Amino acid sequence: MTAAAKRLLVGRPFRSERLSNTLLPKRLALPMFASDALSSVAYAPAEIFTVLSVAGLSAYAYTPWIAVLVCLVMVVVVASYRQNVHAYPSGGGDYEVATENLGPDFGLVVGSALLVDYILTVAVSAASGVANVGSAIAIVGQHPVWAAVVVVLVVTGANLRGIRESGAAFAVPVYAFIFAMMAMLATGIVRWLLGSAMRAESAGFDVQPEHAVSGFALVFLLARAFSSGSAALTGVEAVSNGVPAFRKPKSRNAATTLTLMGVLAVTMMIGLVSLALITKARVTDDPGRLIGAPADYHPKTLIAQIAQAVFSGFPVAFYFLSITTGIILFLACNTAFSGFPVLGSVLAQNRYLPRQLHTRGDRLAFSNGIVLLSFMALVLLVAFRADVTALIHLYVVGVFVSFTCSQAGMIRHWNRLLRSETEASVRRRMRRSQTINAVGFTFTAVVLLIVLVTKFLAGAWIAVAGMAMFFVLMKAIRRHYDQVARETEGDEEDMLLPGRVHAIVLVSRLHLPTMRALAYARATRADSLEAVTVNVDLADTRALVDQWDTQNLPVPLKVLESPYREVTRPILDYVRRLRDKRPNDLVVVYIPEYVLGRWWEQLLHNQSALRIKARLLFTPGVMVTSVPWQLASSRGQDRRVRARANRELQARPRHVPLTITHTVGSEQRESRDTP
Amino acid sequence: MTAAAKRLLVGRPFRSERLSNTLLPKRLALPMFASDALSSVAYAPAEIFTVLSVAGLSAYAYTPWIAVLVCLVMVVVVASYRQNVHAYPSGGGDYEVATENLGPDFGLVVGSALLVDYILTVAVSAASGVANVGSAIAIVGQHPVWAAVVVVLVVTGANLRGIRESGAAFAVPVYAFIFAMMAMLATGIVRWLLGSAMRAESAGFDVQPEHAVSGFALVFLLARAFSSGSAALTGVEAVSNGVPAFRKPKSRNAATTLTLMGVLAVTMMIGLVSLALITKARVTDDPGRLIGAPADYHPKTLIAQIAQAVFSGFPVAFYFLSITTGIILFLACNTAFSGFPVLGSVLAQNRYLPRQLHTRGDRLAFSNGIVLLSFMALVLLVAFRADVTALIHLYVVGVFVSFTCSQAGMIRHWNRLLRSETEASVRRRMRRSQTINAVGFTFTAVVLLIVLVTKFLAGAWIAVAGMAMFFVLMKAIRRHYDQVARETEGDEEDMLLPGRVHAIVLVSRLHLPTMRALAYARATRADSLEAVTVNVDLADTRALVDQWDTQNLPVPLKVLESPYREVTRPILDYVRRLRDKRPNDLVVVYIPEYVLGRWWEQLLHNQSALRIKARLLFTPGVMVTSVPWQLASSRGQDRRVRARANRELQARPRHVPLTITHTVGSEQRESRDTP
Repeated sequence: MTAAAKRLLVGRPFRSERLSNTLLPKRLALPMFASDALSSVAYAPAEIFTVLSVAGLSAYAYTPWIAVLVCLVMVVVVASYRQNVHAYPSGGGDYEVATENLGPDFGLVVGSALLVDYILTVAVSAASGVANVGSAIAIVGQHPVWAAVVVVLVVTGANLRGIRESGAAFAVPVYAFIFAMMAMLATGIVRWLLGSAMRAESAGFDVQPEHAVSGFALVFLLARAFSSGSAALTGVEAVSNGVPAFRKPKSRNAATTLTLMGVLAVTMMIGLVSLALITKARVTDDPGRLIGAPADYHPKTLIAQIAQAVFSGFPVAFYFLSITTGIILFLACNTAFSGFPVLGSVLAQNRYLPRQLHTRGDRLAFSNGIVLLSFMALVLLVAFRADVTALIHLYVVGVFVSFTCSQAGMIRHWNRLLRSETEASVRRRMRRSQTINAVGFTFTAVVLLIVLVTKFLAGAWIAVAGMAMFFVLMKAIRRHYDQVARETEGDEEDMLLPGRVHAIVLVSRLHLPTMRALAYARATRADSLEAVTVNVDLADTRALVDQWDTQNLPVPLKVLESPYREVTRPILDYVRRLRDKRPNDLVVVYIPEYVLGRWWEQLLHNQSALRIKARLLFTPGVMVTSVPWQLASSRGQDRRVRARANRELQARPRHVPLTITHTVGSEQRESRDTP
Repeated sequence: MTAAAKRLLVGRPFRSERLSNTLLPKRLALPMFASDALSSVAYAPAEIFTVLSVAGLSAYAYTPWIAVLVCLVMVVVVASYRQNVHAYPSGGGDYEVATENLGPDFGLVVGSALLVDYILTVAVSAASGVANVGSAIAIVGQHPVWAAVVVVLVVTGANLRGIRESGAAFAVPVYAFIFAMMAMLATGIVRWLLGSAMRAESAGFDVQPEHAVSGFALVFLLARAFSSGSAALTGVEAVSNGVPAFRKPKSRNAATTLTLMGVLAVTMMIGLVSLALITKARVTDDPGRLIGAPADYHPKTLIAQIAQAVFSGFPVAFYFLSITTGIILFLACNTAFSGFPVLGSVLAQNRYLPRQLHTRGDRLAFSNGIVLLSFMALVLLVAFRADVTALIHLYVVGVFVSFTCSQAGMIRHWNRLLRSETEASVRRRMRRSQTINAVGFTFTAVVLLIVLVTKFLAGAWIAVAGMAMFFVLMKAIRRHYDQVARETEGDEEDMLLPGRVHAIVLVSRLHLPTMRALAYARATRADSLEAVTVNVDLADTRALVDQWDTQNLPVPLKVLESPYREVTRPILDYVRRLRDKRPNDLVVVYIPEYVLGRWWEQLLHNQSALRIKARLLFTPGVMVTSVPWQLASSRGQDRRVRARANRELQARPRHVPLTITHTVGSEQRESRDTP
C-alpha cells in the first residue's frame, strides 16, 4: 500500500546512470538557480517600506538611498561569487570553500547557517508567494497559512519526484515572471514620462508613525530597513552550488548566468522602488496604522498595488503579474529543496549527519533530506502564521554568515595559490580576484554586523539559536561516528576463530516452530547443543518435560527455575555463566520466532522473544539466531510484497536482473553451490 | 531508571510461593470483597431521587416503594449467589458458570459484560467518592475531575504493589464507614422518634419539574428510577469470584460473608431513603432547577446532607462520615482492580486475550491488566467530567447481563447434577437451590430488560457497544490463536534435518564487526561460506574489493549489483535464488550489528540491517543471525542494567540463585560443557 502510494506520488525510480543526463543548458539553469534570487525582489522593496513606515510617511524619502545601497552590495556579491564559481567548479559552494580554506569548524558554521537558511527560504518564499497570489485571488488571501502549507507540500512532492522534471517545468513560469515584471517597469516608466497619473489604491492614506524617530534611533531604523532590504541578496549563492549541473564550459556558463541574474535583480529592485514612490503606494505591517483606510481594507502586496496602478484599465496584466510573482516565489522554494538535501548529503558524507541522509532515494533525490526540510519549514510557517515581515527578521543572518565565511575563505584560497604561482599574468589575475573577494568580504561582514545588531531581538536570535543547535548536533554526531570508527578499526589478528560453539535452543512449547529451530540448530553441527526452557508456570513446564520424554527428542532439555516468574533474567544468567566458564567459546542462541503478516498480530506473539534478543545482544561472545516460522498470514503478506516488486520491476525503463560482478577471495570451498 | 522507578512505586517482587499465603479470614474478606457492594448505597438512593426529580417534588413520594423493590431484588440476588458460591468454590464466578453451562459464547458475553462493568466500577466509584469528599473539603469539590484522576492513579499504584497489603489496609476504613453509617442511621431514627427537628440544607427549596409527567411517561420514569437504584446491586458478585481467597471452609465462609453484606446493604438503603424523606433533602442533577436556592449554591451529596442534618451541632461526625464514605468508594475501585486482571488472565488463558495478560507481573499482580483497566477508567472519567449521574446510565447493564447469564447457567447446572443424583435428600436440596436460582434468573432478567429499555438512549448503548467490541475482539483473538495453533501442530517427521548449510555474511565495510561476523560464521563450519556486499556506491565497493584482495581473507566476497541503489532487494533476490536451487538446504545469513547504549545512537546505525532482517524472516528456509559488536557505550548500559539487577536481587526476601531442576533428553553429547 505505502509503496504503491509512494510510486504514484514520486514516479518511477531512476537508474544511477541517469544522474549524468541531468546537465542543464544556461536557458534552463537560469530559472533553476536564479528563481530564489529573482523572487527576492518580490518582498525586499516592500520590507524596506514596511520598516521605514514605523517613523511615518516622511521616512519613505530614504528608500531610494537604501535601495541603491542594497544594489551596490548586490553588485559586489555577484562579482565576488563569479570568482568562487571559477575557483571551485565542483559545486561544493560556500561549505566547501570555508572547510578547505578556514578549517572544518568554519565549514560547519557555514553548513549550519545554510541549513537554517534553506529552511527559511522555503518558509519566506511560500509566505510571500501566498501573499502575492492572495492579492489577486481573495480566497487565498483569507487563508494564508493553509495556502502556504499546501504550497510547501506540493513543492515537496515535486522534489521527491526528482531534479530533471523540475528544470524543464520551472523554466516557463520564471521567464513569464521576468517578462511580466519588465513589461510593468517599462509601461510604468513610459506612462510616467508621458505624465500619465498613476495612483496606487493606498495612495490617499496617511501612515500613523509608531513613535517619533530621530537622531540615533533614526540611524538604527535606516540600518534595519537596509537589513530587511538585504533579503534581496538571498539565493545569489545558489548558482555557485550548482556549477556541476551546468553544461560545459561549466564555470564560464555559471558565471554568465550569475551576471545575468545580478543585472535582472538590480533592474527590478530599482524599478520597483521608483514606481512605488511614483504611485505613492503605502506599505505597513499593521493595516490599523493606515489613516484614511476603510475599516475592511485588506492591503495588497506592494507589487500588486504597483501593478494595479500601472495596468489600470487592463486588469488581465495585473492578474498575470500577481500570479507569476506568486509562482516564481513557490519555485524559489525549489532552490532550497535542491540545495538542502545535497548539502545534507555532503555533511552526511563527512559524518556530520546520519548516514541515511547520504543515500540517494530511488528517485535520484535525497528523499530523507527533502522530507526533513519540508517538515521544519511547515513548523515555521504555522508558528509565524505565514507572516513575511516576521519571517524576514530571521532570514538574512544565515545568508550573510555564509557569504562572509566564503569570501574570507576565498582570500586565503588566492594566498595559497599565489605562493606557488610564478607567472606574472596569472599572478595579476589572481591578485585581481583576491581584491574583489576582499571587497566582498568587507561588504558582507559589515552587512552581517548591521543585520545582527538591528534584528537580533526582532527574531534573528531564533536563527542564531538554530545555527548553534545544528552546529552542536553535527559536532556530536561526528564525535560519535569517530568514536565508533576508532573502536571498530583493527587488523587481521582479530580474525581469531572462537574455540568451541555451544548452541542453545530456547523452548517454551513443543510445536512446529520449536521443531524447526531444533532441526536447524542440529544442522549447524555445533560442539554442544541443548534446549533450554524457563519454569514460569509449573503445570506448563511439567507438560513440556513429559512431552519431551515421550517423544524421545535427540536434544537434551534443561529447565531453568524462575522464582519471580521472569523469563529474560534466568536465560541471561545461564548464557553468561556458560561464557564466564569458557570465555573463548562462542554461544549461539536459537530463538523460534513467528512471522506474521499483519501488524496487530505481532502484538499477540514474540513479546518475550524480542525482549530476550535485545538483552542477549549486550553479552559479548553470543550470537542470536532467529529461526522464523512463517504463518499463513505472512505468506499472504510476502506474496503481496513480491507481486508489487515485480510490477515495479516491469515498470522500469530497462530491467537489469540480479548480477554478480566480482567474486574475490582465496578459499572458494564449494563453488558449485554458488548460483 | 524506569526499573528503579517501578521498584519504588510497586515495591519488591514477590516469590510465587507467597501466592498461597494471601488467604483471607472473614473479617478481612468482608472489607475486601464487600466494599464495592456496600459503597453502592452511597450513590444508589441519591440516583433514585435524582431521576424522580424530573417530575418535580411530588414524585419523591414514590421513593420508598422503589427502594423496597431494589431491596427485594437485592435479597433475591444474594440468595441466588449463595447457591453459586456453594456450587463453584473455584471462584471462576459468572464467567465460569456461564461457560460451563451455557457454552463458550455465553461465557464470552459474560466476560465482555464484566470487563465493561469493572471499568465502570472504577469510574463511578471514583467520581462518587470525590463528590462525597468534596462535600466536606471545598477544594476537592471544585476540581472533581482532577481529584478523581488522582484517586484512580493512587489506587492503580496500590494494586500494582499487590493483593496482600490491600486486604489489611482496606479493613480499617471499611469498618469505619459501616460504623459511621450505622451511627448516623441510629441517631437519625432516635432523634426522629424523639420528635427532634432535622432539616437538610436543601429542605427549603422547591424542585422545578423538567416537564409534566403522567400516565405512561410516569411509569417509564419510575422504571428508570428503579434502574438507577439497582446500581446498589453492583458488586454483589464480587464475593463469588473471590471464593478461593477465603480461609477454609471456603464456600461456607463466603456464603456467610455474602449474607452479612446483604443485610448491611439493605439496612443502609432503607435507612438512607427514610432519613432523606425525613430531612426533606432535595437532589437533582441540575442545581439550576432548585427553586429558592441562592445563586452560588453548591449542592452536597445526599449522604452529606443527611449527615449534616442528623449530626447538626456535631460537625466532627459529619466530616467523619463524608470522608469515610469517600474512602470506601475509593476502596470499591479496588474490587475492580483485583477482579479485572484475574478475569483478564482467565480469558487470556482461554486464548481470548493476548498472552501477556496471562503472565503475572513480578508483584503477584497482573500488572498489564491493571494498567489497562486504569487507563480506560481514566478515559471515561475525563470524558464524562466525573459526573456520577451520567456514568450510572452506563453502569447497570453489564452487571445484570452477567447476573442473568449466571443464574440461567445455575438452573442448567442443577439440572445436570439432578440427572445423576439419586438420593432424595440431596435431590431436595438441589431442587431448592434450583428454585432460588430460577427466581433469581426471573428477577435479574426483568431488571435487565427494564434497564435496557429505560436507559439505552441515556448512555447504556455505550456500555452495550463496549461489550460488543470486547466480544468481537476476543472472538478474533481466539480465532487467530486457534489458527496459529493449527498451523504449528505437528509430529516428529517435521524434525527432518535440512541438507546442507550455506552461510552468507553481509558486508558493507571491512572493520572489526565484519571481522567478528566472519570469524563467528567460520566457527560454525557451514558447508559453504561466502561474504556478500551490495554495490550502491561504486567508489566504496571498489575500495572494499581492493582491501579484501590485499588482506587475502579466507572467505570469498561476492558483489551484487544494484542499479537502483537499493540494499535490501538484491540480497533478498540472491538468497531466494540460493533457496530455489536447493530447497532442502538451509541458508544462514550473518548480519554484523552495532550494539549501542543510548537510544539516539540507534538512529545513527543499523538501519539497513534491521530492514534486511525483517524482510529475510519472510523467506522460508532462512535463518538470520545477528552478530553483535558491543560498542563502549553499550558496556556502560550493560553495567548499569546488571548493577541494578544485582541491587534488586539483594533486596529480595530470599535470594534463590539460578537453578536447573531437570535435564531430560537422550543424546547429551558433551555433558562437561553444561554448567
